[in-house]
Amino acid sequence: MGVLGASGYSGRELCALVAGHPHFELAFATANTQRGSTLRVRASGRMHDVPLIGQEEADLAGVDLVFAALPHGASAEWVAKVIAAGTRVVDLSSDLRPGHGGSTHALPAGVPADAPYGLPELFRDPVKGARVVANPGCYATSILVALAPLAKAGLIAPGATVNIASASGVSGAGASPKLELLFAEVAEDFRAYGVGNSHRHLFEMRASLAQLGADCDLLFTPHLLPVDRGILSTITVPLSRSIDEPLAPFRDAYVHEPFVELTTGLPALADVQHRNVVRLGAVLPTGMRRPTLLVFSAIDNLVKGAAGQAVQNANLMLGLDETAGLPQ
Amino acid sequence: MGVLGASGYSGRELCALVAGHPHFELAFATANTQRGSTLRVRASGRMHDVPLIGQEEADLAGVDLVFAALPHGASAEWVAKVIAAGTRVVDLSSDLRPGHGGSTHALPAGVPADAPYGLPELFRDPVKGARVVANPGCYATSILVALAPLAKAGLIAPGATVNIASASGVSGAGASPKLELLFAEVAEDFRAYGVGNSHRHLFEMRASLAQLGADCDLLFTPHLLPVDRGILSTITVPLSRSIDEPLAPFRDAYVHEPFVELTTGLPALADVQHRNVVRLGAVLPTGMRRPTLLVFSAIDNLVKGAAGQAVQNANLMLGLDETAGLPQ
Amino acid sequence: MGVLGASGYSGRELCALVAGHPHFELAFATANTQRGSTLRVRASGRMHDVPLIGQEEADLAGVDLVFAALPHGASAEWVAKVIAAGTRVVDLSSDLRPGHGGSTHALPAGVPADAPYGLPELFRDPVKGARVVANPGCYATSILVALAPLAKAGLIAPGATVNIASASGVSGAGASPKLELLFAEVAEDFRAYGVGNSHRHLFEMRASLAQLGADCDLLFTPHLLPVDRGILSTITVPLSRSIDEPLAPFRDAYVHEPFVELTTGLPALADVQHRNVVRLGAVLPTGMRRPTLLVFSAIDNLVKGAAGQAVQNANLMLGLDETAGLPQ
Amino acid sequence: MGVLGASGYSGRELCALVAGHPHFELAFATANTQRGSTLRVRASGRMHDVPLIGQEEADLAGVDLVFAALPHGASAEWVAKVIAAGTRVVDLSSDLRPGHGGSTHALPAGVPADAPYGLPELFRDPVKGARVVANPGCYATSILVALAPLAKAGLIAPGATVNIASASGVSGAGASPKLELLFAEVAEDFRAYGVGNSHRHLFEMRASLAQLGADCDLLFTPHLLPVDRGILSTITVPLSRSIDEPLAPFRDAYVHEPFVELTTGLPALADVQHRNVVRLGAVLPTGMRRPTLLVFSAIDNLVKGAAGQAVQNANLMLGLDETAGLPQ
Repeated sequence: MGVLGASGYSGRELCALVAGHPHFELAFATANTQRGSTLRVRASGRMHDVPLIGQEEADLAGVDLVFAALPHGASAEWVAKVIAAGTRVVDLSSDLRPGHGGSTHALPAGVPADAPYGLPELFRDPVKGARVVANPGCYATSILVALAPLAKAGLIAPGATVNIASASGVSGAGASPKLELLFAEVAEDFRAYGVGNSHRHLFEMRASLAQLGADCDLLFTPHLLPVDRGILSTITVPLSRSIDEPLAPFRDAYVHEPFVELTTGLPALADVQHRNVVRLGAVLPTGMRRPTLLVFSAIDNLVKGAAGQAVQNANLMLGLDETAGLPQ
Repeated sequence: MGVLGASGYSGRELCALVAGHPHFELAFATANTQRGSTLRVRASGRMHDVPLIGQEEADLAGVDLVFAALPHGASAEWVAKVIAAGTRVVDLSSDLRPGHGGSTHALPAGVPADAPYGLPELFRDPVKGARVVANPGCYATSILVALAPLAKAGLIAPGATVNIASASGVSGAGASPKLELLFAEVAEDFRAYGVGNSHRHLFEMRASLAQLGADCDLLFTPHLLPVDRGILSTITVPLSRSIDEPLAPFRDAYVHEPFVELTTGLPALADVQHRNVVRLGAVLPTGMRRPTLLVFSAIDNLVKGAAGQAVQNANLMLGLDETAGLPQ
Repeated sequence: MGVLGASGYSGRELCALVAGHPHFELAFATANTQRGSTLRVRASGRMHDVPLIGQEEADLAGVDLVFAALPHGASAEWVAKVIAAGTRVVDLSSDLRPGHGGSTHALPAGVPADAPYGLPELFRDPVKGARVVANPGCYATSILVALAPLAKAGLIAPGATVNIASASGVSGAGASPKLELLFAEVAEDFRAYGVGNSHRHLFEMRASLAQLGADCDLLFTPHLLPVDRGILSTITVPLSRSIDEPLAPFRDAYVHEPFVELTTGLPALADVQHRNVVRLGAVLPTGMRRPTLLVFSAIDNLVKGAAGQAVQNANLMLGLDETAGLPQ
Repeated sequence: MGVLGASGYSGRELCALVAGHPHFELAFATANTQRGSTLRVRASGRMHDVPLIGQEEADLAGVDLVFAALPHGASAEWVAKVIAAGTRVVDLSSDLRPGHGGSTHALPAGVPADAPYGLPELFRDPVKGARVVANPGCYATSILVALAPLAKAGLIAPGATVNIASASGVSGAGASPKLELLFAEVAEDFRAYGVGNSHRHLFEMRASLAQLGADCDLLFTPHLLPVDRGILSTITVPLSRSIDEPLAPFRDAYVHEPFVELTTGLPALADVQHRNVVRLGAVLPTGMRRPTLLVFSAIDNLVKGAAGQAVQNANLMLGLDETAGLPQ
């Protein structure tokens, strides 16, 4: 396996998961600005030293699969190179996802415009054996896993607004040093950002929901939390009809899913950190004129929201046990 | 001035504000479990030592006004004693607020069931010169100041659901030691609580909005933040008609208010900590079928959400400059 | 295996380690105040539900070994019961340690006054096959592993003062709710406590160093950090003679130890959290008249400083691989 | 007044203090990379908007005094320009301090090599009326105020090692974005840095202590804390003779100092944040062969450790009340 972009938080997590995977071996990890140095990662309770090389030095043809954890916009070009080398690729950027993260740039030659969207709990079959997979965004993962069973069951009131307030740990903003991500700026603070439906993940959420049969508006407001990792999405769904038991739609949909867990309580970040799961809770609020469901969805943005899901997709692409090497 | 319940976070903040107030003097501060010890507070850049006495030792008749910062349910009884002593009182509990925080217990004899609700920006006149005032809840303050201009202008779509996702710092949960408030439990976590419209502040919010002419459902979901102080409310309002400029309704309503500030950006906790202000921002989201306004409202839960607002009310009750002794 | 006192932070960690251990099974976990409820722990990437029972309900005779994670002073009595039941026991309190944590109470009948001190890297042989082991304190572990090689090599200047400034995460103070451990009290703060050589761990440190041949004064100052877990000890050692290479004494001593790691850099809490290791760094400071060594020692206070070391001791007591079930 | 370098944490704090000062007016604030934008600071409970200009645009001759809060090495050149313009200057860099922070570069023409060292509690007279003052380092301030009374009284054992373990909040590292200062890197971590007597502040500490008559080695080890602001120094002093009362030397020395406070408890960061004070505590440890004093010193690194002390110096240079505009 190879990892392109190993100095970011997703890239580091990928190196750790690959190093601890029973069937994978890490052939190379690139990080242009840190080439020559060593990355130290923990996997299965042990430490591993990963030498970092420059991107141009990577032997793309010599591995079974490459994980591309490069910045949005810069990734597609490298995906094209991996494809040209005859190697499978999981792309963690938004470049190949449905809606392309809002980009209007054409994809490079050889890169499919309709790569399977690697959210196995919703769209598993196209991922099996695929050669190129677009790994979903972290917010999109937390939200789509919560909304899909309602969409498929026709429970989202047609034409209604689904309101989503999400909050993410700082690692979701990446490891590039920026003033607003310094400890002294983030600690003791909380604020929204990317508001008014301007976030890149809306494209893949809208496309996926349409595919699942929902006809609704999304209003998505992300916030920045003073924590390292984790996303909690608090989602309000106007229902097309009353339901008796808030978790029933999810129970039916996810009974066989190893990476979705339901709670009759309220999911918290502490429940999911360092695990490849989506943890869901749901409540029927009182005092409402119209039937409404509140859904809470928690993930680790770096695991089920990025690197863990990428390994889950790689397992499916290579015909392995989907859960191999993943902390449940 | 006297403070009942000075060992809680609101009580401590009250002692600091009274100590630094140009026209107030702190005559007593009670804290039954810590009687005999000394509370150290900072006011106007100086430290003050406040001796703590038992509640029964307080000379309720010997002061102009008493701030009651006692637990919900236990406060009304002491308010009755203060009233019987002929002294003015600002009650920071939910006992006297509209809807009484959902309590079905009768108020003690002598305590008015319709004490003025001390949110001066919305209901100033009844507070002026009043002898008993109910100080609003912290969440209610952040939300009502955001919604009132829209309600008064008829901008909230009749029958619609106003969705509110709020997040509060830990000091909002009080200073009583509980396992779930320990550092090791709260740090690196984020979770909702009091969900499904079960929070005590809904009663005063619904009553106030009805009084302001709004006919809407509220769906209120509070969350616990790993920060010390501050509340951010993210509020989605279905509008009865389109508007061009998101801040316009607030500009008209609050142009003369010293404790409301508007931002064309997004308010953050860091903007309001240790200040007696509500900071508001608003955005018109794209991609929506129906006109919708996103409002963000930030306060310091211990200042504008509790002790600062109590001093603001005391200033009005005593005919002083409303801003005296308050950090803007 | 049984765990007495599973509601504290060490007890929870023990349940997780036992649940994930290849050769252990968790027969019971007690927590008097939470009896009847369920503890949720993560082990080997999976979640486990542990039912909590009352202490009196535990079948002490029906298990191979009991971990006692009870408060200092209350533990010895239960250790006596476990011994009377014919079962092995690792005691995590200070009751059985050298110096007994300064307690002058006599131990209950049947409890040995000289139980092996379970710091395997220094005193492994007495632990092998033992029926009763005293698990070291967290600070003592971080400090003794750092000082032992210097003591054994005669490198600590006779009669000198070894200065130790340690800082610990909040979980070291236990899970009993106290005001000073609330998030709003600990966040953004840092302070010393237990100063002037008044900390309970000094007894076991002095006894162990004397046993290793050192003749020095210890000056130990612990501090409380706004982090969940981890201890960093910064230790200044006046040397009896100059040395050329700061890590040399440790390299010789620990080359074969699976749970001690050396770094040419500076150990940090982030390097050791959730791992059963002591991570050591050392520096020869410039500008000093006398030869002096600065040693840095980092551990996870709940793993190598408590539960992990207890499992390491249990492995040795039962003749198993010392590293079984432990994250390195 | 003018501020050079207003985008750093010290520069921001300076703007706030100048804006809230009863006798100062802020004429300009420079920040090359943010020129044209507005800095928002809080002073005396009010918000102030400060326009940021480029450094070359500053009218150095048009103000009474300039605060230079520029990076070490880059500052001296601007100090020379301010002096050439005939304006007083307080330099917050290490360039003009005793020992010049270890720099071997010659100072620019016109810059005095022996500018008064602006630690008024120790060296007040040379600062009064001075035209150029070197503002001390933050660590140096916390340590020298703790050691000076002992040095002057001949209490530091001749030839002994004074051991100093300090811990600083992240704002001490400045506002330049660096990976190791990101929230996700700092939170939940703790580590030493600049160890082995390699820190720049040692030069001014050694020079000042020699001037005060002490003959000792310093061993100084700074650590990085996951908090925004504050420094706690834990200092071990071998005494030349026994003393009875640990605070006595400090009481005599600082009885008239408005910005030094003594506590019979232990100073904590929470006691000093946002205040221009040094808070000292002291303890005589037990179990020591030689008389030894433990001293604890807490400051806000941005106030008494930088901007507050700079204003204190400016007050003295201009013949104003030393405490004007400073939070005690």
